[in-house]
Amino acid sequence: MSFRDRLQQAMQRSPVCVGLDTDLRLIPEFLHSAPNPILEFNCRIVDATIDLVGAYKPNFAFYEGHGVVGMEALRETVAYIRAKNPDIITVADAKRGDIGNTAAMYAQSIFEDLEFDCVTVNPYMGWDSVSPFVKDPEYGAFILCLTSNSGSHDFQYKMIDGKPLYRHVAEKAQLWNTSGNIGLVVGATHPDDMKSVREAAGDMPFLVPGIGAQGGDLASVVKSNATGATLQALINSSRNIIYASNGKDFEDAARKATEYLRDQIEKLLQSGV
Amino acid sequence: MSFRDRLQQAMQRSPVCVGLDTDLRLIPEFLHSAPNPILEFNCRIVDATIDLVGAYKPNFAFYEGHGVVGMEALRETVAYIRAKNPDIITVADAKRGDIGNTAAMYAQSIFEDLEFDCVTVNPYMGWDSVSPFVKDPEYGAFILCLTSNSGSHDFQYKMIDGKPLYRHVAEKAQLWNTSGNIGLVVGATHPDDMKSVREAAGDMPFLVPGIGAQGGDLASVVKSNATGATLQALINSSRNIIYASNGKDFEDAARKATEYLRDQIEKLLQSGV
Repeated sequence: MSFRDRLQQAMQRSPVCVGLDTDLRLIPEFLHSAPNPILEFNCRIVDATIDLVGAYKPNFAFYEGHGVVGMEALRETVAYIRAKNPDIITVADAKRGDIGNTAAMYAQSIFEDLEFDCVTVNPYMGWDSVSPFVKDPEYGAFILCLTSNSGSHDFQYKMIDGKPLYRHVAEKAQLWNTSGNIGLVVGATHPDDMKSVREAAGDMPFLVPGIGAQGGDLASVVKSNATGATLQALINSSRNIIYASNGKDFEDAARKATEYLRDQIEKLLQSGV
Repeated sequence: MSFRDRLQQAMQRSPVCVGLDTDLRLIPEFLHSAPNPILEFNCRIVDATIDLVGAYKPNFAFYEGHGVVGMEALRETVAYIRAKNPDIITVADAKRGDIGNTAAMYAQSIFEDLEFDCVTVNPYMGWDSVSPFVKDPEYGAFILCLTSNSGSHDFQYKMIDGKPLYRHVAEKAQLWNTSGNIGLVVGATHPDDMKSVREAAGDMPFLVPGIGAQGGDLASVVKSNATGATLQALINSSRNIIYASNGKDFEDAARKATEYLRDQIEKLLQSGV
């Protein structure tokens, strides 16, 4: 099945994406005795939440920083998710961007070796740095468009022919999206501007970070991205879910936080916001 | 010693940077029997060229694609260069760009674990995605400004207040460069526009890809970046050097190609271009 169709089905089941930003310093103490504590933590979080979510998104920085053990945890986490439910979308939050032949190597590594379904990519280097990630319709890419951090104001808001750079990125992404496997990363911390991206992007799926710890507004995100009762977005939450507790009850706490987010989205959707 | 001073000394000794884009399919057949063929190839290239160069730049895509073995080759290559000559600059061509706390983890991984001197970073997410890489003056970052690939035309040339985006990146980089440890990546394939970046960037060092296989013009690069008899640039060559031959003579061929590039630059500098 194409990435496009798999993502649509996943978003319909649940638009919640759990960010597996697993930091050894923040996971429960008692997991440190496991052979691979990061992997152990991830598998338990997956067990506690997989029936509530559409996707998981590990950020590569948290794994690369631990060398061989970290990369093994990354690979095994993806395999674990796939074995439990192959319909769940796995997002490699790697923010790649390099010239053509090099991007092709990254694509091979992320899709074939690590077996992710899709990846986040940086648009600065243009089409030939994105195309290797989307040439096979079985895989997909979310292009950084309007990010949730404060530095987003340095370049993304620069006005070009009356429109900010992030809107140009959204428009290019739509032109490039001939296989329907391109989405956009749009941070929840810019609610008004998210509407403007949505105008430019048609029904392209968004990956939305910035809910929770970063202070983004959920109602506004749902409002900007609802088409009837379905949401054209994966709404990511990392710390609020995976570190909801760092005690023995962390799985329960993660499940409750995930359920709460899913239910909030559902309510907002049903109320027509 | 600060990164700034180390880089200045390295560029004075030789502005040549050898790109270690080591591809298993392109290295000599007879090296495939080594325990780690990528590492073996790199060490031999380093042995053959280290007295002629100022820096080495491995592109991460070529290592990550080989998992554990690849990352071991990357780490050991940096250690090998450092042991042979600690004055040589090692550039992690990783093109990182992520939000603050995540960028900090990448910085730790690249500088502390892998022991690189500096890294390439993507400006799209702005200052908080760059700052973790430059807060310690012992390390540095080259920010992607005007890249050598065709996709550079998609966004980098967009006009903002009468100047292309890449010039805005150069100007911001200069503002951010309070510790003198920021440089810019400017491709040799845009000779006229490189002059414009140089105007905006003062004497900030450039990392210049695109000579050789990508067709950049060396004379023009030297002209844009010479201050008297010194060059404020590392000029990178990858394939033309490391794959100068794929036979038993690959080390000799790599040495000759490196020597040729260094001598060409030297001649251009002495002739005042």
